[in-house]
Amino acid sequence: MAPDVDAGPDGRPARPARLKDVAELAGVSLKTVTNVVHERRHVKAETRARVKAAIAELGYTPSLVGRQLQSGRSNIVALAVPRIDEPYLGALAHALIMAGERQGYAVFTDETGRSDEHELRAAAGYPGNSIDGVIYSPLAVDPERLADMSRFTPMVLLGEHLSEGAADYVAIDNEQSARDVVRHLADGGRRRIAYIGGNPSRPLSVGQLRFRGVRAAVDELDLETRDDWLLRCDRYSRETGAAMAEQLLPLIGEIDALVCASDLLAIGAIRTFIEHQVRVPDDVAVIGWDNIVDGQYLSPSLSSVATDLDLLADRTFEALISRIEGNRDPARVYTVPHELVLRESSRASI
Amino acid sequence: MAPDVDAGPDGRPARPARLKDVAELAGVSLKTVTNVVHERRHVKAETRARVKAAIAELGYTPSLVGRQLQSGRSNIVALAVPRIDEPYLGALAHALIMAGERQGYAVFTDETGRSDEHELRAAAGYPGNSIDGVIYSPLAVDPERLADMSRFTPMVLLGEHLSEGAADYVAIDNEQSARDVVRHLADGGRRRIAYIGGNPSRPLSVGQLRFRGVRAAVDELDLETRDDWLLRCDRYSRETGAAMAEQLLPLIGEIDALVCASDLLAIGAIRTFIEHQVRVPDDVAVIGWDNIVDGQYLSPSLSSVATDLDLLADRTFEALISRIEGNRDPARVYTVPHELVLRESSRASI
Repeated sequence: MAPDVDAGPDGRPARPARLKDVAELAGVSLKTVTNVVHERRHVKAETRARVKAAIAELGYTPSLVGRQLQSGRSNIVALAVPRIDEPYLGALAHALIMAGERQGYAVFTDETGRSDEHELRAAAGYPGNSIDGVIYSPLAVDPERLADMSRFTPMVLLGEHLSEGAADYVAIDNEQSARDVVRHLADGGRRRIAYIGGNPSRPLSVGQLRFRGVRAAVDELDLETRDDWLLRCDRYSRETGAAMAEQLLPLIGEIDALVCASDLLAIGAIRTFIEHQVRVPDDVAVIGWDNIVDGQYLSPSLSSVATDLDLLADRTFEALISRIEGNRDPARVYTVPHELVLRESSRASI
Repeated sequence: MAPDVDAGPDGRPARPARLKDVAELAGVSLKTVTNVVHERRHVKAETRARVKAAIAELGYTPSLVGRQLQSGRSNIVALAVPRIDEPYLGALAHALIMAGERQGYAVFTDETGRSDEHELRAAAGYPGNSIDGVIYSPLAVDPERLADMSRFTPMVLLGEHLSEGAADYVAIDNEQSARDVVRHLADGGRRRIAYIGGNPSRPLSVGQLRFRGVRAAVDELDLETRDDWLLRCDRYSRETGAAMAEQLLPLIGEIDALVCASDLLAIGAIRTFIEHQVRVPDDVAVIGWDNIVDGQYLSPSLSSVATDLDLLADRTFEALISRIEGNRDPARVYTVPHELVLRESSRASI
């Protein structure tokens, strides 16, 4: 039944090419191939060309394998996110892949869903795979268990903050960014601030930290908010934003600004408002977090809090590489800068 | 300098837990742990509970490792896409991850950019990693070279079609879907059809196949199009769509429909139209491909051609698993169904 899996249809081996195959095809020694691969000088131009042609023909990719053999490491890390098709997580993955490239690491992205089993596989460092470390945005796994496992797996956490000390954590200052948002709204003449996204049962969740900042700024700036203007939600999706905005429709006229804990919530809310002839920003200013690209192309375009993703990605690798190299210091929190990107949706009221 | 990398701070080994660790902690034999892991019946409930507690405490994940040892396979495949932060590719990755789960495979996503080197690493099957096969959306690599490598690497192509016979290829019927789009526009009273996205220098590219369908339908239905209404572009981005729409502004009034080879192009075009007081769909109907979620939340919401992504993902795994199991038949093209999703942007003209 099983065909000959050791040879391709032309008799060449049906497996990735090895150094030895390159040497044979080029008619040189292993040492010479290594010299070419490492760009050492004492190889004749003609020989180098022949080896490079053999490398190209065989599709030999020396870098990872060589490094792995030298160091016992793969220079591959896994990025484990709940959903790969969320715009912010896609942008984050892209930034991490670019940062990985700068550091000599490849990044494989895995989707954990909200599945305990998947998250545990990530937390365990993907046993059976050659993964040096994990960049991890967990949702489901028990924080204490994660803290336990982070002692075995080089790991950096992004996204929801689980608990102090579970593992290194990289994020913006969520409370301060919310204060900045409210100050911007107040500068534009807004006085009565609604909020979507807090979750009091998870006090360290991103949404709850931002909520804390909103509340503090409302007090500081002598603005107004009320309990029924503060809507909690667990999922930061467009659908949730649209549904929450339905609840706010009777309050339009009373509230004049809506702060959403994510751009997706804001995008859903704006769509609901437009469908009900609520004018954004004239009747209500709307602002989100994440600065996803789609926000620029909405009409009105969406104001948002942007994370410096390139810096976040570099910090993440800095922390992760240090763990991979054996650093056992207590877990650290790395804070990266944020910036308000102001567009049409939060323009000043007249 | 280097700390003791063999032991965690509590003296436990700083590596993924093994079967042996579980057996020791639970105080049972290796055989008993295996029996519990494989859910065999002849284990006492009390013993099973003890083993499961040990598995949980150690974060031992048996499935992948066990399977890998049994079969010589990892049950992991790589998905190599140009950009992980494109909405369609994100949705595709999510669908493939779900389909992989149905088939017992994990999917790791890799971003190849438009880099030759990265694409070759994917085409070579990620040497040095335990990857059984590759789902691959190439842009840069030389097609002939890919055809060569696909004989060594179990591989299925998505996205741009490179050349007949390079490797198994899964996609919608691009020409027919374009015909369906034009028929829908004609049914809504549109007569003069512009198009963004063809590239005559790559006749098998998605955009060029769709262009062929548009042109055929325009002829069949006795509509009109003109060479200067047909804009070619290589990148299907929002920015490109916005720039192309600038070029079409002088033609509004002449053209009454714009077919875009992707939703991102359409989203960029609509933003430009709105900024220039061109009304969509009243002045010009707009429609795209991919049915990305953002399209639903635009105002006007975006009509689009949807690929049955779940079916595409299942077909992809069917083809890939067959190649992993040694199938050496000539490359096949698998066609999956598409559907027109009609929203506000292409509503009938009055």
